[in-house]
Amino acid sequence: MWVYEKKLQYPVRVSKCDPHMAKLLAEQYGGADGELAAALRYLNQRYTIPEKIIGLLNDIGTEEFAHLEMIATMIYKLTKDASVEQLEAAGLGPNYAQRDSALFYTNSSGVPFTAAYIASKGDPIADLYEDIAAEEKARATYQWLIDLTDDVDLQDSLKFLREREIVHSLRFREAVEILKDDRETKKIF
Amino acid sequence: MWVYEKKLQYPVRVSKCDPHMAKLLAEQYGGADGELAAALRYLNQRYTIPEKIIGLLNDIGTEEFAHLEMIATMIYKLTKDASVEQLEAAGLGPNYAQRDSALFYTNSSGVPFTAAYIASKGDPIADLYEDIAAEEKARATYQWLIDLTDDVDLQDSLKFLREREIVHSLRFREAVEILKDDRETKKIF
Amino acid sequence: MWVYEKKLQYPVRVSKCDPHMAKLLAEQYGGADGELAAALRYLNQRYTIPEKIIGLLNDIGTEEFAHLEMIATMIYKLTKDASVEQLEAAGLGPNYAQRDSALFYTNSSGVPFTAAYIASKGDPIADLYEDIAAEEKARATYQWLIDLTDDVDLQDSLKFLREREIVHSLRFREAVEILKDDRETKKIF
Amino acid sequence: MWVYEKKLQYPVRVSKCDPHMAKLLAEQYGGADGELAAALRYLNQRYTIPEKIIGLLNDIGTEEFAHLEMIATMIYKLTKDASVEQLEAAGLGPNYAQRDSALFYTNSSGVPFTAAYIASKGDPIADLYEDIAAEEKARATYQWLIDLTDDVDLQDSLKFLREREIVHSLRFREAVEILKDDRETKKIF
Amino acid sequence: MWVYEKKLQYPVRVSKCDPHMAKLLAEQYGGADGELAAALRYLNQRYTIPEKIIGLLNDIGTEEFAHLEMIATMIYKLTKDASVEQLEAAGLGPNYAQRDSALFYTNSSGVPFTAAYIASKGDPIADLYEDIAAEEKARATYQWLIDLTDDVDLQDSLKFLREREIVHSLRFREAVEILKDDRETKKIF
Amino acid sequence: MWVYEKKLQYPVRVSKCDPHMAKLLAEQYGGADGELAAALRYLNQRYTIPEKIIGLLNDIGTEEFAHLEMIATMIYKLTKDASVEQLEAAGLGPNYAQRDSALFYTNSSGVPFTAAYIASKGDPIADLYEDIAAEEKARATYQWLIDLTDDVDLQDSLKFLREREIVHSLRFREAVEILKDDRETKKIF
Repeated sequence: MWVYEKKLQYPVRVSKCDPHMAKLLAEQYGGADGELAAALRYLNQRYTIPEKIIGLLNDIGTEEFAHLEMIATMIYKLTKDASVEQLEAAGLGPNYAQRDSALFYTNSSGVPFTAAYIASKGDPIADLYEDIAAEEKARATYQWLIDLTDDVDLQDSLKFLREREIVHSLRFREAVEILKDDRETKKIF
Repeated sequence: MWVYEKKLQYPVRVSKCDPHMAKLLAEQYGGADGELAAALRYLNQRYTIPEKIIGLLNDIGTEEFAHLEMIATMIYKLTKDASVEQLEAAGLGPNYAQRDSALFYTNSSGVPFTAAYIASKGDPIADLYEDIAAEEKARATYQWLIDLTDDVDLQDSLKFLREREIVHSLRFREAVEILKDDRETKKIF
Repeated sequence: MWVYEKKLQYPVRVSKCDPHMAKLLAEQYGGADGELAAALRYLNQRYTIPEKIIGLLNDIGTEEFAHLEMIATMIYKLTKDASVEQLEAAGLGPNYAQRDSALFYTNSSGVPFTAAYIASKGDPIADLYEDIAAEEKARATYQWLIDLTDDVDLQDSLKFLREREIVHSLRFREAVEILKDDRETKKIF
Repeated sequence: MWVYEKKLQYPVRVSKCDPHMAKLLAEQYGGADGELAAALRYLNQRYTIPEKIIGLLNDIGTEEFAHLEMIATMIYKLTKDASVEQLEAAGLGPNYAQRDSALFYTNSSGVPFTAAYIASKGDPIADLYEDIAAEEKARATYQWLIDLTDDVDLQDSLKFLREREIVHSLRFREAVEILKDDRETKKIF
Repeated sequence: MWVYEKKLQYPVRVSKCDPHMAKLLAEQYGGADGELAAALRYLNQRYTIPEKIIGLLNDIGTEEFAHLEMIATMIYKLTKDASVEQLEAAGLGPNYAQRDSALFYTNSSGVPFTAAYIASKGDPIADLYEDIAAEEKARATYQWLIDLTDDVDLQDSLKFLREREIVHSLRFREAVEILKDDRETKKIF
Repeated sequence: MWVYEKKLQYPVRVSKCDPHMAKLLAEQYGGADGELAAALRYLNQRYTIPEKIIGLLNDIGTEEFAHLEMIATMIYKLTKDASVEQLEAAGLGPNYAQRDSALFYTNSSGVPFTAAYIASKGDPIADLYEDIAAEEKARATYQWLIDLTDDVDLQDSLKFLREREIVHSLRFREAVEILKDDRETKKIF
């Protein structure tokens, strides 16, 4: 189970109201390679992965929920002072018609999140390559999001998230090597 | 952010290997009225609900993740000792072909989870009735799941979850009343 | 069965060609809380709801089809005189590429309608709270749509629809009370 | 708008409780070529089809809703006396876990209805061939459903529906010819 | 099996960088009536269609893959020199955030391709009318796409594709007649 | 463009009518890690991958279509002599009601194929890890399918496909190394 701590993993600051950037950030909220997909993927794999990898999945899965909360906070801060006209101009008219300025788990095109984005195979090597791919895809998206804004405060938070994905990718690669070593050891004895 | 505590909110015990019951329990894992839908719904609404309701959404949303973990544990325990033949007989052949005995966020028919199951309106009254409806629907599903098994250990955990949904429904109804009182107070002065 | 009467439940007039507003109105045509979702939800629940509520579901479900037709008429009138350039400027370029100025059951972001938006539980209390939530969500959307236009003729029709949702919500709340009273009466005798 | 008449278009009788047949009939309730898809397709096309075809679409679309109600009645009658064990044996365990014996808009595999099954092009010839194809596909499904049951009462209702699809297909073919004649006439003068 | 030949079926030239047109062309890449849908539909039907029609489905299905490659080439050429600002202005900001200027199988609104767009009935007449409808719908879309651009080079390729759809439609109509003749011949003897 | 050669990449033989195995094989026809997903993923990535990798994607993508055809042939051969009773017993009753014994792009649970299963990022490293993960997931599924049948002829074809996935995975890993070497070389000079 999880205990909520009333703080963000890393501070989220934005320099200006920017609903268009909020629209694009939805990609990491409810998109294919976003934080929700990541958290759900890793926590679900815990039940069939070899025991020595469970802790890693648990730690990273839990951290991804903290990232999801950071993204939510960014979207909220970027839109909370926007007028209806600003939302419209930012391409968020459909979101306003549907839910005022509330958040939702869609990608940046407005397509609702689906578990079809993620995989669970019960094969440790397949699961871990799925995870490495996920981190590499998220890393790429964070780079593009950083490129899309000139808000240095927002960039700072996004850079933190991009760095975390790189670290996660490395840790999943190490996990592949650990499992491969185990297999070879077993074959010898 | 969340901190993981290595324990379940309430113990999960099962008396026997029962993969067919595991298949049906997927309804509360990745189904329309399941725990994933519940957790995501409440945590997402936090950003636009009136401030005095945020804590309630945060508490219940966090608890639903603990419930999701309980359901995952049930599914895992009910299937971990099943042979391929037992999985096939239980209607889990498609799951085996796709992912061995790994879990996944589908409903009991095998349909992947979609955020289309949940709503977020940015209108406090609409959001809270959405939440009451969600709890009533989950309560009903838990009752049917209890009826579908004769495993008293499993029933014990399911009854705990059903009771929690009833408590949540009451708390969301109270929240509606609090908001209505506020509105009236504001109208008077 | 139903008999078609060649009139709208309430007149639909628009003051000007406004394809962008048509795009936003799609939310109530094929969106999560729209009239199609409403009609299908109530008519489907008729088969397992207690007998004394069937008529209510039948009446409201049938009325929602009349509302769906009003929304279709609005969308048609707002776009029928638009040039391709106007459709493009209104964000309806994708719709034009796909189907000229024909209507379709998507939400305002262009996502096709899915039955995953609606629920059917066979539990009368859960079904009725689902219905109350649906009406409250539709009520909220109509308010935002009214805010999004300055066309007083269009607003007039939208206000009619918003009022009907409020009436429906009240009637579903009364139905909950009727069922609760029945349960208590049964317990006493 | 539509007025509800409390009768079915054609009587629905079933000779026995048969939940497995109910499961298969869902194909015509919420499936790709089912009655819901048909009704929604035709009524939506009314707004952009040439005026002389509107009445046909209106008539057939309205009739398809009557067919949808007949299918719902079949499913209800085939399952209303089934025990949980019978539902389970019929492959309806997932439906029971999710919604007791309530109906829902899925196909016979349990996949929720999506508007992606239907098309709307705003091109009269394309729309009418879409409609002919729809009727031919529904005709084929009714034949297979008739083959799947030995309940002569149920077969009687299904045969009625199959015949209606054949009639509709013919009427849509006539409509294609009418439009083609018009085009040629216009070319001459 | 297929052998790749390193050439396009018909040359694809574009006169200018035009990412907005690329966005609209996605309709024929991953949309409901696009080339992917067409290719998959015909090749899948080969297994249950009467033998004398298999070759036709094989030829047209294979050709549709060549068309898919032409559309991909158009999209690539129209976007490859676009700056991020141009992508944003063209409504491709969400695509950039998600995948830089990579292609993907969505329609022009960004909705991912689904097999729900296509049908397979195992009834030859139903399958062939499905195919005629598909070609008529694609033909209409190509016309609208031609109308949406003033790039004569691009129009040239699109006109080629539109013509091919008309030819395919005729060939599927002939196939219907062949099957009908066969049926009548069989009835006589 | 592609040229069709009227032969399979590798022979497909089956020893017996086995519609249940056909149902499970659908996982590799229209499932998340199936051959359709693979072919579409690689061919789509060709447009933004570095030039020296294009040929690899083209070759493997084209080969995956040959695999898709092998899977289709297996499904066809395993079901073509099955009676309606056998289809029903194998869990293919819903498929029969919908399309006789025709094939369709669903997974083994009957869920239609969606492009949400695949990714395209325009980032070469992310794309290649996506591809390695895809091959590892397909490799795992083939192993489970081999375990699910005792038909040695069918196993022979499945083993061929499994081996090809292993080869593809290796080739994608080599491609990652080639790109990494390039990057380092560029950094040095």
